[in-house]
Amino acid sequence: MVTATLVNPRSERVRAVAALVRRSARERTGTFLAEGPQAVREAVRHRPDLVRDVYLTAAAATRHTDVVTAARQARVRLHECSPEVLAAMSATEATQGIVAVCRAAPATLAEVLAAGPKLLVVLAHVRDPGNAGTVVRGADAVGADAVVVTSASVDVWSPKVVRATAGSIFHLPVVTGMPVEQVLRELRAAGIAVLAADGAGATTLPDADLHGPHAWVMGNEAWGLPAEVRAACDAVVRVPIHGKAESLNLAMAATVCLYASAAAQHSQSG
Amino acid sequence: MVTATLVNPRSERVRAVAALVRRSARERTGTFLAEGPQAVREAVRHRPDLVRDVYLTAAAATRHTDVVTAARQARVRLHECSPEVLAAMSATEATQGIVAVCRAAPATLAEVLAAGPKLLVVLAHVRDPGNAGTVVRGADAVGADAVVVTSASVDVWSPKVVRATAGSIFHLPVVTGMPVEQVLRELRAAGIAVLAADGAGATTLPDADLHGPHAWVMGNEAWGLPAEVRAACDAVVRVPIHGKAESLNLAMAATVCLYASAAAQHSQSG
Repeated sequence: MVTATLVNPRSERVRAVAALVRRSARERTGTFLAEGPQAVREAVRHRPDLVRDVYLTAAAATRHTDVVTAARQARVRLHECSPEVLAAMSATEATQGIVAVCRAAPATLAEVLAAGPKLLVVLAHVRDPGNAGTVVRGADAVGADAVVVTSASVDVWSPKVVRATAGSIFHLPVVTGMPVEQVLRELRAAGIAVLAADGAGATTLPDADLHGPHAWVMGNEAWGLPAEVRAACDAVVRVPIHGKAESLNLAMAATVCLYASAAAQHSQSG
Repeated sequence: MVTATLVNPRSERVRAVAALVRRSARERTGTFLAEGPQAVREAVRHRPDLVRDVYLTAAAATRHTDVVTAARQARVRLHECSPEVLAAMSATEATQGIVAVCRAAPATLAEVLAAGPKLLVVLAHVRDPGNAGTVVRGADAVGADAVVVTSASVDVWSPKVVRATAGSIFHLPVVTGMPVEQVLRELRAAGIAVLAADGAGATTLPDADLHGPHAWVMGNEAWGLPAEVRAACDAVVRVPIHGKAESLNLAMAATVCLYASAAAQHSQSG
């Protein structure tokens, strides 16, 4: 399953992988790059159907035998590369000698709703890749049913977002490309309560009813959610600030909200 | 209170400010750099006693009149600079035309304990500046009494940490320079329960008793806490993972733990 070692950093194949740093190339090919042993491991374990090719150096193959074994079991194509080829494929040092080209396979909101979700996260106007990825990781940690990344948000398949998800991008459905207004309309039509997380909210988190099916809507890092989006939500909820801090950052606020939801829903079912 | 405009990016004064990016210069001078309007605003509002000098461009003075007014009221020295001088003072683009040189004034653990604290955070072996700063911000948000940054952790006065605190470094006491073993000993002697936050903990967060005075101990991003530190704690507590994520990142885990503490302590007192 290991092909001949790739040694030409200027080959067409290498340039095609390196191009995935650009959104245009990702959209044209419908693929994205997962970098580093953790991301590649989660890809081959959880979504081998999405993995087109794994590229790795001999050193990485020796160091990460678990990833190689999982990739072989999943019948994923492995390509050994010279360190120069691997370096040319990625602009970052996050690869640690191993990357995977994966198919970007967003879920549809209809599919997500058909499964009867209890907990969802909507990223509306979230622009920072680290925040977006960290929220996907947090959503995974609490066992949320899906993340919806609206069309005005960062591209969830960008290398920085994928890296910040720490593999969680392969663990739960991600819906992309819909305007936030349409998302909220469909959620409410499906009987899912829509809660905006916003520092200006009238309801504090401990007072929010989190037992039923609901979705958290997270706004922009700097300016939050537009008034019309807040108005389209069932409640605007703020995480209480007890000290002198002005606010929490977006990923922290999302994590606190999601854990409050998990605590309410798990105590109910348990 | 505004002196003659500084225009020479190679002057001794400018080089002395720029040198604060290095730990050695910070330690020799006992000062550090706060960058950007938010950090400078919080410094002049909450700890004007620590602010040695504020440097800003004419454009920043016009844009951030609230900061200028607060600085004048606090009788802080303001220095107008050319954009070239401001750029030479900082390696980052985070300044937005305004920085402050501040005195690094760590609190002592004895002072913190004398005030009868209810909630503390100990950073043991935390190396990532963004994580350390975000935890300080989270500690501030929940109204924690102090943060202890042990000697094996990142330098809390480094520009990256200060930036990630979003001004919170000026809001609550920060103890530095003590080995973690000594910190835990003194906390326990003062009757403060010591809880290690660790993914391998035997106690899950909802089962931890968070009503009394306690301190959260956060370990290294990659390898957590050494066994001997965990053994010196009253409990090792893990944030429950409901989905497929391996873990939360350190700042997220700390935030979830701190909000659980705040919820327990505020419901008790309310």
